[in-house]
Amino acid sequence: MNTDQIIIKMLSDRWHGAIKNFDTAMDAITDEQLQKEIAPGKNRGIYLLGHLIAVHDDMLILLGLGDKMYPELNEPFIKSPDKAIDEIPSAQVLRNCWNKQKEFLTQQFNSLQPVDWFQKHTAVTAEDFIKEPHRNKLNILLTRTTHLTYHTGQLVLLK
Amino acid sequence: MNTDQIIIKMLSDRWHGAIKNFDTAMDAITDEQLQKEIAPGKNRGIYLLGHLIAVHDDMLILLGLGDKMYPELNEPFIKSPDKAIDEIPSAQVLRNCWNKQKEFLTQQFNSLQPVDWFQKHTAVTAEDFIKEPHRNKLNILLTRTTHLTYHTGQLVLLK
Repeated sequence: MNTDQIIIKMLSDRWHGAIKNFDTAMDAITDEQLQKEIAPGKNRGIYLLGHLIAVHDDMLILLGLGDKMYPELNEPFIKSPDKAIDEIPSAQVLRNCWNKQKEFLTQQFNSLQPVDWFQKHTAVTAEDFIKEPHRNKLNILLTRTTHLTYHTGQLVLLK
Repeated sequence: MNTDQIIIKMLSDRWHGAIKNFDTAMDAITDEQLQKEIAPGKNRGIYLLGHLIAVHDDMLILLGLGDKMYPELNEPFIKSPDKAIDEIPSAQVLRNCWNKQKEFLTQQFNSLQPVDWFQKHTAVTAEDFIKEPHRNKLNILLTRTTHLTYHTGQLVLLK
């Protein structure tokens, strides 16, 4: 393995490890528990689930992998705070979205070549990328991994 | 910047970003609030603080950067769960340890050359490292960053 391949494996392993930890937590939490706040007055578990799906959907855009799978989740789970919108999808619907998205993202990630990961993501201009070459696709994977672990630390509190 | 330097900047930025987010949360939390549980029946804020210092202390060993700064924190904050040990350091003492350790780690990280980050960490054998070259020092920085964000997601609940 060359350095590019090593680093891609490191970050890919962390992403999949973070997804696995989230799934383990979700498997131990019932749909009823997901309706509860992670701590008094804070976000509900179901909001965190919807929020993560909406944020991961944005990765498809940022990585140039196509359209979002669930654009309708942007409004209730990114633009709006928890409890601002009465009608949100059920826990069962969101669990299905999560599972489908997870598989699709894995497929898409596997389709990228090492060199692709070091190319610019779609939210940075070609001009800026010359000065800031760390704003590449791999960095999107990295920042979304730390975002996922942040919220997993909260979700486990519902167990 | 070559690929090695780019990836080291990416992971270093994420580490420092995660430290900054933790500090922002800590600055907004009083010593009294740190004594509270992050959610009913869960770890107290002060335990998370001590736990993170103890885990980051281990990085000094894993990265071959010297001895632990606070070996006495291993027993109460890694080996023992919260509330198992009555006598633990005060919030003020732990805040000071955190700040000193943070500066020392930054100094030490800055002393490493790019090539050093891709060398094996001290918990993997030379033999295993040939087969698993991703078990390098940079991977220690990565996994401790995701560990830090996991607990930061919990600490902010005390605000």
